[in-house]
Amino acid sequence: MTDVVIGIDIGGTITKIGIVEKNGNCISKESFRTKGAENFDDFIKMISDTVNNLLSKEINFFSIGIGAPNANIRKGTIETPANLNWNGKLEIVKKLKKYFKVPIILSNDANCAAMGEMLYGNAKKFKDFILITLGTGLGSGIVSNGKLIQGFDGFAGELGHISIFEDGRFTGLGVKGGLEAYVSAVGLKRTIMYMLSKYTDDSVFRKISFNELHGEDITRAAENNDPIAKYAYKYTGKILGKSLANFVSFSQPEAIILTGGLANSGKWILEPTKKYFQKNILPFYRNKVKIIESGLEEKDAAILGAAAIAWK
Amino acid sequence: MTDVVIGIDIGGTITKIGIVEKNGNCISKESFRTKGAENFDDFIKMISDTVNNLLSKEINFFSIGIGAPNANIRKGTIETPANLNWNGKLEIVKKLKKYFKVPIILSNDANCAAMGEMLYGNAKKFKDFILITLGTGLGSGIVSNGKLIQGFDGFAGELGHISIFEDGRFTGLGVKGGLEAYVSAVGLKRTIMYMLSKYTDDSVFRKISFNELHGEDITRAAENNDPIAKYAYKYTGKILGKSLANFVSFSQPEAIILTGGLANSGKWILEPTKKYFQKNILPFYRNKVKIIESGLEEKDAAILGAAAIAWK
Repeated sequence: MTDVVIGIDIGGTITKIGIVEKNGNCISKESFRTKGAENFDDFIKMISDTVNNLLSKEINFFSIGIGAPNANIRKGTIETPANLNWNGKLEIVKKLKKYFKVPIILSNDANCAAMGEMLYGNAKKFKDFILITLGTGLGSGIVSNGKLIQGFDGFAGELGHISIFEDGRFTGLGVKGGLEAYVSAVGLKRTIMYMLSKYTDDSVFRKISFNELHGEDITRAAENNDPIAKYAYKYTGKILGKSLANFVSFSQPEAIILTGGLANSGKWILEPTKKYFQKNILPFYRNKVKIIESGLEEKDAAILGAAAIAWK
Repeated sequence: MTDVVIGIDIGGTITKIGIVEKNGNCISKESFRTKGAENFDDFIKMISDTVNNLLSKEINFFSIGIGAPNANIRKGTIETPANLNWNGKLEIVKKLKKYFKVPIILSNDANCAAMGEMLYGNAKKFKDFILITLGTGLGSGIVSNGKLIQGFDGFAGELGHISIFEDGRFTGLGVKGGLEAYVSAVGLKRTIMYMLSKYTDDSVFRKISFNELHGEDITRAAENNDPIAKYAYKYTGKILGKSLANFVSFSQPEAIILTGGLANSGKWILEPTKKYFQKNILPFYRNKVKIIESGLEEKDAAILGAAAIAWK
């Protein structure tokens, strides 16, 4: 018998489920379209069916970890998620308990990613670090003295919503100058539009609409020396670097780990981020905080993160 | 025999020492001018002499807590303090250990204040809160799940140095747009100057120099309907309220406790702070976070804070 847990990552587009051993080996996995379920009860049924498909007699699973957007850690609910089809308070833990008689732990996706880095990735040796996910939005998981900062109500670590400009861009939640309106996959697209408005340089982006624009196009354009793409990365990295320097004043991490689509742009985002981080960090923190990339392979990172909270 | 600890608060001007019982009762206390000591070794000697003066045969003291600016919690040192006369790394714990054979715990003043509120003040029932000291600068102590956030190196919770404006005022540490350049006793004085530059209203402050200006004058002027004083409080409270709303996204406290000279301006600072806090807080935090005042009497708060870390 092999001891395993189930890791479930609920994304706006895809829900991924995997069977994970203690060492982080993902024995088997499957995924389905989150919006393929008509209602939330159907969705719960789809999770249950998928888990049962993945299980075999040789394995002994004893807990389930779930990563989801807008997760309330303490109550086991998903609350008014912007990117899912269902509204209100979704009682995911309670409903799944009807199917599985094991402990079920829910956390938000960025918190899962932080726990995943601690167990399997680049944070194994850190007790104080901040993980930043740069996906559609900007998520964060903050670990202090080896423990996740959860907050009074399970909603700590929403750094994407911090307002950084008095009179800046609006986020989906209506925050004026919210960080994720600048530093995220969508934020970078918005910055391409801003740079097209500000400069007169020719650019591949003068022929592409906002909706047709993808993150990889921006990396490719930067590699082809497109001035608008290069301005956009520099602008984004400057804001991210300054913001990370501010975050250090809060929990003084030993490392900040960047993960997600935008982090995969490599040097284009990392170089300006590190430069402006060093420029803005307080003297008594200088040379004590590393900015590093995720140690988990992108394809399994979300499942491993969810599995990590189950093992914990 | 009464069980007690010694609480020592080292301030830029005054060093206060008290004998404190477990229930927070301060049996006796004494203070001296910090700058009265010629060098740091003399200062240590003065602490030792004062403690010995305060002790009597009927009490049994078993630890010493020290609150100081720029304290390195983990190393027991005070590092390059801006407001003390001595520079470099001051080995305060090591040097005091030559005089006293009991455990000696050092922490920064705002962290002590947070522990004081937890043991004796208004944070007794909170496991997640942020304490903000509004003195000469802006200090902070952040408690998450009942524990102080210390950070990798003992320097977490330096919220006064967070940069809030792209192109703002400089702090003593050279941070551009640093929060404490706006929200602190000195920040409020700077704002009086700014308002004198911006508006043409007559004001009592047109006859007072920056150096002659004191916090109490500003409260008094506001009570006398001085427009410049009222603009200054509103401006300060707006910045503080917005900043506190941002801080909630980090550790999701149940309460934020304001203490120190500027907090004593009462409604003049609290009303705009609360208004802009509510206006800027994220929807999913709304009505879950209280802004409250310190529950400790000003005169003993610093000693009690230092005693609290000794009892812990």
